[in-house]
Formats: sequence, C-alpha cells, structure tokens
Amino acid sequence: HSIVLLPGDGIGPEIVAQARGVLEAVASRFGHDFSFSSHRIGGIAIDETGDPLPAETVDACRSASAILLGAVGGPRWDDPSAKTRPEAGLLRIRKELGLFANLRPIKLFDELADASPLRADIVQGTDILFFRELTGGVYFGESGSSGEGEDETAFQSMTYSRREIKRIVRMAATAARERSNRLTSVDKANVLEPSRLWRRVAAEVMTEEFPDVQYDVVLVDAMAMHLINRPADFDVVVTGNLFGDILTDEASMLPGSLGMLPSASLGESGPGLYEPIHGSAPDIAGKGIANPLATILAAAMMLRHSLSLHAEADAIETAVAGVLADGLRTADLARGDSEAISCEAMGAAV
Amino acid sequence: HSIVLLPGDGIGPEIVAQARGVLEAVASRFGHDFSFSSHRIGGIAIDETGDPLPAETVDACRSASAILLGAVGGPRWDDPSAKTRPEAGLLRIRKELGLFANLRPIKLFDELADASPLRADIVQGTDILFFRELTGGVYFGESGSSGEGEDETAFQSMTYSRREIKRIVRMAATAARERSNRLTSVDKANVLEPSRLWRRVAAEVMTEEFPDVQYDVVLVDAMAMHLINRPADFDVVVTGNLFGDILTDEASMLPGSLGMLPSASLGESGPGLYEPIHGSAPDIAGKGIANPLATILAAAMMLRHSLSLHAEADAIETAVAGVLADGLRTADLARGDSEAISCEAMGAAV
Ligand SMILES: CC(C)[C@H](C(=O)O)[C@@H](O)C(=O)O
Ligand SMILES: CC(C)[C@H](C(=O)O)[C@@H](O)C(=O)O
Repeated sequence: HSIVLLPGDGIGPEIVAQARGVLEAVASRFGHDFSFSSHRIGGIAIDETGDPLPAETVDACRSASAILLGAVGGPRWDDPSAKTRPEAGLLRIRKELGLFANLRPIKLFDELADASPLRADIVQGTDILFFRELTGGVYFGESGSSGEGEDETAFQSMTYSRREIKRIVRMAATAARERSNRLTSVDKANVLEPSRLWRRVAAEVMTEEFPDVQYDVVLVDAMAMHLINRPADFDVVVTGNLFGDILTDEASMLPGSLGMLPSASLGESGPGLYEPIHGSAPDIAGKGIANPLATILAAAMMLRHSLSLHAEADAIETAVAGVLADGLRTADLARGDSEAISCEAMGAAV
Repeated sequence: HSIVLLPGDGIGPEIVAQARGVLEAVASRFGHDFSFSSHRIGGIAIDETGDPLPAETVDACRSASAILLGAVGGPRWDDPSAKTRPEAGLLRIRKELGLFANLRPIKLFDELADASPLRADIVQGTDILFFRELTGGVYFGESGSSGEGEDETAFQSMTYSRREIKRIVRMAATAARERSNRLTSVDKANVLEPSRLWRRVAAEVMTEEFPDVQYDVVLVDAMAMHLINRPADFDVVVTGNLFGDILTDEASMLPGSLGMLPSASLGESGPGLYEPIHGSAPDIAGKGIANPLATILAAAMMLRHSLSLHAEADAIETAVAGVLADGLRTADLARGDSEAISCEAMGAAV
C-alpha cells in the first residue's frame, strides 16, 4: 500500500508525522507493507513552486492507494491581493481526484464528555455521519462580475445535476444501511432551484433503490437549529457543498474537542483523501503541543475505507480511546489539574 | 398611526390578537391613536384568492405606518406540485416593500436562563444583534435548468451589488455605534465571488465612514462554530441573505425559547415589517396555548423603529420581563411544576 502524505502548513507536518508513526506500528504489528512519500500542498507549495497544488503532487496522489493530509493555510498567505491562496490547492485536489463525498463522523468521546459546550442531557448519544457533496454546488459554479460604480455586481452560480445528486445520495444511503438505517437530506427547496432538483432526485433514489431506509428531509435553517437542541436524533445526513461546509463545522463543536475529529473525502474509485477537520493552527505551529489524535483517527478511516483493513482501523481507534482513558491529554484537551503532554508523546502513546 | 396586521396561518391569528391587545393598552395608557386593519397573506390568502400576497394586501402595507405579521405556512399548502406556496408571499412582500434589512436580536432572558441547550457558562452574557440582508443574494438570483436525463442541471445565481452591500453594512454599523461599537461581517470570501465583493465593499464603508467602529470579518463556517462555543463574544453581526437565514436560526436556539424572539424587516424608508421568528406551529393552532410573547416583543420593536415611541416600547419590554418574573409561563416555557397559562391569559397579563 503506497500512502501519500501531504503535511501542508502550520501544525500539519507535526501531526502527520505522528499519524505516520501510528501507521508504521500497525504495519509491523499486522505484518503489512506501507510505503510513504511526502508531497507539497498549500502555502509551502506556493512558497517553493508558486502553485498551491503542483502537478507533481497531483501525479503522486493519482497513483497512491490513499492520501493523508495535515492542514493548509496561515496568515503568511492571507494577503487578499495574492494571485493564489493555499485553499485553492485544497479545492483543486478535490476536483482533480473526483472526491465528491466528504464523510464527517461526529461522535462524542465518553472520556471527554464534559468538553461539549452543550448541556450533557442534550448532547448525550450524539453520533452523526455527515455526507457533504464536495465537488459541485456554488463552490464550482460559474462566477464573475458586471456593472460599474454602485452597480458593480459579483455573481457565482449554485448548480446541481441529477448525476451529482444521485451518486452522493446513494453513497450516504448505503452507509445508512450499515448504521441504523436512517437518512436525512438537507436542502433549501423552499427557495433554491438546485435544492428543488436535489429534493426530487433524492426522493427518487430513495424510493427506487433504498425503500428499506427510513428517509426524511429538513431545511438547512431548521437543521442549523436541530443540531443544537436535538443532535442525538440524527444518524446519517446528506447535503450539498455549501450547506455541508456550514453544518459540519457547526456540528464539529458538539463533541467539544475539534482536535479529535477526522474526515474522509472519497470518489467513485481511486484514492481517498483523509485529514483532520481542524485547521493549520499557525499560532501553535512548531511548538510540539498540537493534538495529533484527529489525524491519527483520519489514518484509521483510511485503513477502513481505502485499504479495507478493518481490524487495523479498530486497533487504532481502541488505542486512542485507551490513551484517553489513561488520562493522557494534549494542551487543547487538558482541563484543571491534568498535565498536558506533547504531540510526539501522544503519538507515541497511541 | 395606522398599523396593518397580517395574521397569516396556524397560530398567527391568535398571537397577533394578543399583540394588538397590548398595543391598544399602550395607546390608552400613553394617549395615542392606533388604527388597525387586517389583511391576508400566506396560505389563507391562497385559499381565498389564489395568491399568497394579493394586491390589496400590498396596497394596504404600502400606506401603513408599520406592519405586524403573525406567521405563514402549514402542511395544507405543502404539496410540492402546488402552483404557489405561502412562503412566496413572504419573499414577495420583502421585495415589494424594499425591506432589505432583517434585524434579529438574540438575547437571553434572565428568567429563562436554564432553558438554553448550551452550558450556562458558555451562553451567559449572549446579546447579539444580527443584520441579515433580505432582498438580495441567491434568494433572488436568476434561476433555471438545463440538460436532460442524468445531465439535467438546476441553477440559481448568488449575486451581490456594491449598492446592496453598502446600505446593509451602513445600517448595521450605525446600530453598532448605539451598542458597544463592534461589528462583525460574515462571508465566504475564500470561495465565493459575491463574498469577495462583500468583503471589499464592507471594508471600504467601515474605513471611510465608520473608522471609530471596531470591525472584523469571519467566515460563515467558522461563525457557525463560534455561535456555539463563544456566542457572548459577538455584538452586531452583518451578513448576506442565505448565511443570515442559517446563522440567525442557529443563534435563535441559544436563548432556549424560540417563543420569545422577535424580528424587524426594514427598508430605506416606508413601513417596517415586524414578526416573531417562529413559524405558524400548525400542530397547536386553534388550541389557545401558543406563546404570544415574541409577537408582543415584535410590536415593541415596531414602536421603537417605525413609530419612534421609545418609552412605549420600553414599557412593553418591561411588562414582558415582569410577567416572566411573576412566574407566568405558556406551555412552551413551562418547566417542572410551573403550570401553563393560555395565549390569551399571557397577552392579558402583559
Ligand atoms: C478552506 C475552505 C475552502 C474549505 C471549504 O469551504 O470547503 C474548508 O472550510 C473545508 O470545509 O474543508
Ligand atoms: C420561509 C423562508 C422562505 C424564509 C427564508 O428562508 O427567508 C424563512 O426561513 C425566514 O428566515 O424568514
């Protein structure tokens, strides 16, 4: 199995190094052969090549079994007049590799139960798997501007095709069958034409292909409410690119520990891309205090989804639960009298 | 002062009747003359005229001093193949009257402090005033569809013009001066062209016209997080139509009592429209148990913003705080051993 590492910017290199260490431990324990190669993406790629996603990186990704990404971006590349930005690399790799499905599990960790900003009685039992459409919608719509002076107008088009809707709904519904057989689709069909198509096509797919899966639809504004006052009522949730961006970030607050949440971006075939959902945290980069657990859990998702190594993925997740149960905490998780350990120490412990 | 009442559907007529009662009490206490006339909007207007916003209603609104709306919609009009829907009336009245600014105060009620789904230490001190742009953005963008079979594609264009951005940012910044002099603008400038124009124009307005107001920008996905884990850090927030729809609904959960939140929709001149932010609650319509307080508080906003009757608005707000302090609760607010009173009893108590 050849694994491409894209450490990226900020704390990216530190956390990816720890996840690699964990994957090497898995390889030796279970007798696998993982080969690793590192490539540039984001700000560091801009600095060294002028391009946030050099062709060399895309080529390496295409021929890999799977991709593990750290994080991209930082204040150094935030100049609004810059020709390109680190995030452009992220958007392009999604599109180039056809990674149309972004999976984000949102699950409470028993060991970190009191970390949630929500009341315990509300958040208890939350276990949601989001499927965010990742290569369509307004993110990739035609854009431009017209008019002058006060009339200067900028536009970007939100679009969805029947094909794009079908494949993400199918993938989410298939995942629902392996969980509690319930799927919620989120749209804004009372206002938006692409949401109306989304609602129609999703209903067709569910009726024709997944009549056994309990299915409902919720408006995006209502969903933003439900995630706060009854998050435990949802299981698998599927939605478009922009709504998914907002709702998954909202939901990522529920466990109260952003440093614990992984995500996977998958296509129809080809390598998947795995990453922590948190950013590059430039303020703590290089200090050795970052929390590597989200990246380590992303590596577990990678073993499960791209390499079909289920026992190995379980082993990583059990190890993470184990170190938490042992009371080990990085700075972001430490509360009161528990002492924080380093990024490297946490990786080694797992 | 001529006030147009648009009771609408579901619990709309019940809650508007109580708000009218409160306004009549204000009129007699302070020696004003309010005249009221009721007009149709939403589902009831579809049933009786075929149009969710009959011309007669628009005419009445145009010549009014202010408008008080109950709520529109319900399952009776939810048929996806219907020619028109109650919400179309709402979208059209915003556009016809040029109500480009939707103001939504999100404030905790001390008396209902334990109602929030958030931990008390997180939510404490939350007091946000949202300005949502209401007549532009993707809501009113060009829409349509193209292609056939799997390629069938629907689109709707998100647009913003310099003029649209300026007037809402100005209104929000002016309000910030009357509060704690801080304004946050929310966009998705790392992905969307209209957000990039929004960010540029907002910065120009703030630098040139409001150099004294502390100003920052936040991405919409980050804002969806911040509202959950540090809501007390924000004061005045300005954003576009779609982001405002999602974020204000998310924020409306923080006080834990949707039945307490009013909103105002204002234009450059002409009558403002005031309404509770909750919906028509068809499940409890006609039972006399709805909570009229959000509508009563919307009436207070109306006195303040459209009629410049500040002492009168304060009197209503003080009365609402008073009945809560007295322990009076409608069914949605009642907890444990407190007995619920009717919609009418609550209105009378205020
Ligand atoms: C960095 C940005 C372009 C990106 C997005 O909006 O998709 C990020 O927020 C994410 O969710 O991965
Ligand atoms: C009913 C709907 C069209 C409306 C909107 O999205 O604007 C509602 O959600 C609101 O916020 O007033």
